[in-house]
Amino acid sequence: MMGGDYAPAEAVKGIKSLEAEGHQGLHLLLLGNEVEVSPLVKEAEINESLYTIVHCPEVIGYHDHPVKALKEKLHSSIAVGFGLLARQKADAFISAGNTGAMLVGSMFSLKQIEGLLRPTIATLIPRENNKAGLLLDVGINSDCKPEQLNQFAAIGAAYAGIILGVNDPKVGLLNIGEEEGKGNILAQNTFPLLKENPNIHFIGNVEGRDILEDKADVIVCDGFTGNVLLKLLESVYPITKRQGIEHPYFDRFHFEQYGGTPVLGVEKPVIIGHGVSGSEAFKNMILLAEKMIVTDFIGQLKARL
Amino acid sequence: MMGGDYAPAEAVKGIKSLEAEGHQGLHLLLLGNEVEVSPLVKEAEINESLYTIVHCPEVIGYHDHPVKALKEKLHSSIAVGFGLLARQKADAFISAGNTGAMLVGSMFSLKQIEGLLRPTIATLIPRENNKAGLLLDVGINSDCKPEQLNQFAAIGAAYAGIILGVNDPKVGLLNIGEEEGKGNILAQNTFPLLKENPNIHFIGNVEGRDILEDKADVIVCDGFTGNVLLKLLESVYPITKRQGIEHPYFDRFHFEQYGGTPVLGVEKPVIIGHGVSGSEAFKNMILLAEKMIVTDFIGQLKARL
Repeated sequence: MMGGDYAPAEAVKGIKSLEAEGHQGLHLLLLGNEVEVSPLVKEAEINESLYTIVHCPEVIGYHDHPVKALKEKLHSSIAVGFGLLARQKADAFISAGNTGAMLVGSMFSLKQIEGLLRPTIATLIPRENNKAGLLLDVGINSDCKPEQLNQFAAIGAAYAGIILGVNDPKVGLLNIGEEEGKGNILAQNTFPLLKENPNIHFIGNVEGRDILEDKADVIVCDGFTGNVLLKLLESVYPITKRQGIEHPYFDRFHFEQYGGTPVLGVEKPVIIGHGVSGSEAFKNMILLAEKMIVTDFIGQLKARL
Repeated sequence: MMGGDYAPAEAVKGIKSLEAEGHQGLHLLLLGNEVEVSPLVKEAEINESLYTIVHCPEVIGYHDHPVKALKEKLHSSIAVGFGLLARQKADAFISAGNTGAMLVGSMFSLKQIEGLLRPTIATLIPRENNKAGLLLDVGINSDCKPEQLNQFAAIGAAYAGIILGVNDPKVGLLNIGEEEGKGNILAQNTFPLLKENPNIHFIGNVEGRDILEDKADVIVCDGFTGNVLLKLLESVYPITKRQGIEHPYFDRFHFEQYGGTPVLGVEKPVIIGHGVSGSEAFKNMILLAEKMIVTDFIGQLKARL
């Protein structure tokens, strides 16, 4: 409840709008400072059966060092959240707080899926066909091995299929040429692995010009390239606003609307929100967490890896 | 004259508009099929003192294999052009033809600047402040060493200063975090070299969100990341056209208008044009080549490396 620039008010609004839409079957553990959170949820008249406030008096700020903060601030909502997940007291964890702490918590408090080399994070990409594409890794694996990219491809295909509802998602390898054999050493060595991976529908190399197009539903790359691309694409919406450009196409570059970024490859759903998350983003993150639970996304992912 | 989708007509138009603007002091060697080129330049009434047609009966097509074509089609305009450069019969070479053949010719027909590890290619980036930034490498060095990126930084700073007229150009390292020590192994190891390079004004790491901003005048990255970014940015203008968005900011993403891409680090100016180059692009490429000659860009670059 304490994560994000507009915490905890926007989180409460998100929960309220979920309730107002008649959404049922969830129980929310609201981790935060009870003194701040309690009056807000009461004021919003959220049904008490929907939530339990878990008092977390400490806060990990945006400038706190992730590893240090997680060790020292044991009563922060992020530390408590990962503790609940690890002890099976929660099924998923959402926060718009310190991204580094969320990543460190995911990697060190939770088990990785067996056989996985490294967890990954993905982003949705607005495409011209009005459907969202998936790009991964977007930043936690800045140097990758071909075997990692091959696993990211399987993770991305599972996510696109199960969570985004894409039938037989097309997987492309981000590269700087169309033909097999093109690219840097990583891409050259990843291509044959993807070609032989029975769990994905590999369509070959895709280039920078294909990212916003309909060519691939899932695009795999190293986390350095992916993070540069993500941050470039995130900069487009603010630019259009400053330039006075209003257009539905560019509205879809408003990345905050997508809710959050799931950490993929750990034993429980973890969703990291943008610092500027508003009520809509919080609502979408809760719905995404629920979908990952009810579809048993992680169980299905294990079966595919 | 035979390179590009609208060859040779648009090249002739570009030369004509240069002449019409009263531009003087150039002599153009027009490499192409005399039967096609001659009537066009005559029809355009271009002053005969401005040009010499060099008959090149063969053409390297877009689908020709660069190395093979350059070896076999000795009478193509690309092969003849590099021959003239190498024998000091021309001071610069421009073509909108087969990019691969232009790159292979640059690397194997011309000497590299002494001490340079690898030549590079750069692209202009449209920025919000209406000035163009420079991004390099954008595709001929897909796997890089820190020492190469350090040289690209010096090359980019020289180009921004001498050719683009930027005073004390700010050089940034493309990375996925702001602080020193962030990033992939390449970026981590490049940072200290840039910090100690006396020939550049290094401002530190820049991220994806800074590419379209005014943070750095020159952004250095490996050719894999750079090529993905270039092709993504090139895809923006066609998307805005399809979406019916008309705006001066996005008009600046019309990369063809920039003329061409110089190959930097070889002993003579070589400029590679887009396949879709129109007369404006041809004119701009000629002006760029002239500027590189009259400023002794290559001499100055040698002094800095």
